[in-house]
Amino acid sequence: MAQQHLDPPTDPTAGSVAGDVLADYLRAQATEFLRSLRQHRETGGGGGTPARANSSAGENGSEESGDAARALRRSARRISGSLHTFRPLLDPDWSEAMRPELAWLSGTLAREHAYSARLERLLGALNRLSGSAALPSQTGSDPAAVPKGQLTVGAAKAGALLDRQLTLARTRAHSAALQALGSSRFHAVADSVAVLASEVPLTPAAAATDLRPLAAAAADRLTDAVAALPLVTAGHPYNAEALVHGLSADTAPQPQDAPWHQVRLLLRLHRYAREVLYGEQCPVDVRLLAAGQALNRHRDAAEAASAAASAARTPRIAPATAYALGVLHADQRHEVEAARFAFQQAWQKEAVRTP
Amino acid sequence: MAQQHLDPPTDPTAGSVAGDVLADYLRAQATEFLRSLRQHRETGGGGGTPARANSSAGENGSEESGDAARALRRSARRISGSLHTFRPLLDPDWSEAMRPELAWLSGTLAREHAYSARLERLLGALNRLSGSAALPSQTGSDPAAVPKGQLTVGAAKAGALLDRQLTLARTRAHSAALQALGSSRFHAVADSVAVLASEVPLTPAAAATDLRPLAAAAADRLTDAVAALPLVTAGHPYNAEALVHGLSADTAPQPQDAPWHQVRLLLRLHRYAREVLYGEQCPVDVRLLAAGQALNRHRDAAEAASAAASAARTPRIAPATAYALGVLHADQRHEVEAARFAFQQAWQKEAVRTP
Repeated sequence: MAQQHLDPPTDPTAGSVAGDVLADYLRAQATEFLRSLRQHRETGGGGGTPARANSSAGENGSEESGDAARALRRSARRISGSLHTFRPLLDPDWSEAMRPELAWLSGTLAREHAYSARLERLLGALNRLSGSAALPSQTGSDPAAVPKGQLTVGAAKAGALLDRQLTLARTRAHSAALQALGSSRFHAVADSVAVLASEVPLTPAAAATDLRPLAAAAADRLTDAVAALPLVTAGHPYNAEALVHGLSADTAPQPQDAPWHQVRLLLRLHRYAREVLYGEQCPVDVRLLAAGQALNRHRDAAEAASAAASAARTPRIAPATAYALGVLHADQRHEVEAARFAFQQAWQKEAVRTP
Repeated sequence: MAQQHLDPPTDPTAGSVAGDVLADYLRAQATEFLRSLRQHRETGGGGGTPARANSSAGENGSEESGDAARALRRSARRISGSLHTFRPLLDPDWSEAMRPELAWLSGTLAREHAYSARLERLLGALNRLSGSAALPSQTGSDPAAVPKGQLTVGAAKAGALLDRQLTLARTRAHSAALQALGSSRFHAVADSVAVLASEVPLTPAAAATDLRPLAAAAADRLTDAVAALPLVTAGHPYNAEALVHGLSADTAPQPQDAPWHQVRLLLRLHRYAREVLYGEQCPVDVRLLAAGQALNRHRDAAEAASAAASAARTPRIAPATAYALGVLHADQRHEVEAARFAFQQAWQKEAVRTP
């Protein structure tokens, strides 16, 4: 039943051989990967300045290099996802060796941007909580440019502490990414992708294998995982569920978040499977888009809340700083709850449409 | 239009003289006031133990005395509210002298209970935020009995700090209430109420005055005040409005709360006016009840949030304590937001029913 309403009823692969459809998609993504890699090298991706460069001279190159890294991750995720969903069509040795390498690469490249976005989110929240109208998005992409005039001492100190900690983490992530891109491990991945761009290692049976049951299985894994989510609770506004462990002694990431993160990954795999099947003509499913955005927001808010809690464990901070970080943590956990509500609302829409 | 759907369509005062209806109501409330006062004196309301007595010997007396104080406040509020709404029917000098005295009395008597309830709310929230299942309501009425085993150091210290501060405030409020009940000012109020119980000072025109336009005016004041509330925002879950000044430098009560507090008072006056008109047969309006409960919760959460913020300004507290108080403050401000949403939902129900 799940795949019935997750996939359009027509069969776009009719007439073309299943293996060819998958090979075309993988070749296109591999080509895109190589193009982004070239662009990343040309725009100073090998330079020493982190993505959020404050010097205007390095800004353009840094921004373009950030775009190139994003595009690189985008195709790496799509290749990896397709290898997973359409496993039976591909040479198992090759594809099983390839996936962890792609995951390593996109994980390494994602970190720098994640720290930068986290800092921007937290400083924006501090401003909002201080009743200040100015948000980072209105002052350009530089989160440090947020006016601190209206902030209380605690909020300003909390902002400075988060800025210090997350900027350090970002700089380290930047170095790690540079190191990764220069490593022999990376060159091996790039070589594999280059091979993929010309020749996809399909199994002999690939031509006769139907892609649709495999895509449907991905859709099923998604709907099963969604069914296991506490959606009834999430659909009740202000259920106060997300902050339930807000003061627990456990410093590990909240276990209640894990199933939502898992659904986020499965939703992505489902989306990629649809892209393989329907290609460029793939109709944009507004509902999947909204659900995916809610889950991205869920992940970002959960990580920001955790960063605020971790900053509060810095030794010798002032009580006012700790207080502001506590307010900030709770605020981001409520964002987590709001994102779950938004996901429930988006997902619900489909249930209504289904007869 | 407002009073059309706020009041039942029948005219229960038809056949009886308006002045008599109001006089009957006031006499009944005055009698109830005197009865509660007697009960309060008999059950040790004049004793030295605050309402939350820990000794089992004083517990019953203290509980009954608390009930008596509540009943005293209940009738004081009703008398005061009726004097206000039906002003033109009553001797102006007498009624204008009486109202501030009744307000002083019920305000003085309310404080002790308010501090006790606030502490219970905050300790309950600290437990909830620590992922502890035990809530104060399950361990009896004594908030100090909340198990602290699962609390982090910060949450436990925050709880102890709040316990200290609010218990001190409650003890002071208890003494102030005792002092008030022994004062000549109080005896003057009690004497006035005793007069009211036998003879209501109506104006000569009272018999010919219609109560309904006056009750309708009270209903109009309520609907006008509700119309001025930001209900569209409140109706969007997770609008993050209540925490907007969560970290602002201003330590005064949040100005955004004031119109909601005002609606709470006007809702009460409207309810009392209905009681005067319809007496004991007054149909219970579930919607008014739900709306009123939401506004009580709004007030309680706002004051609890403010108590947490004020505890965080205690000199020389540990950062972990301050952090827990920050989380607690934000949690209670979200309760404020949730209460506004609940009010909007309750109020909305009527709008749907109205053609």
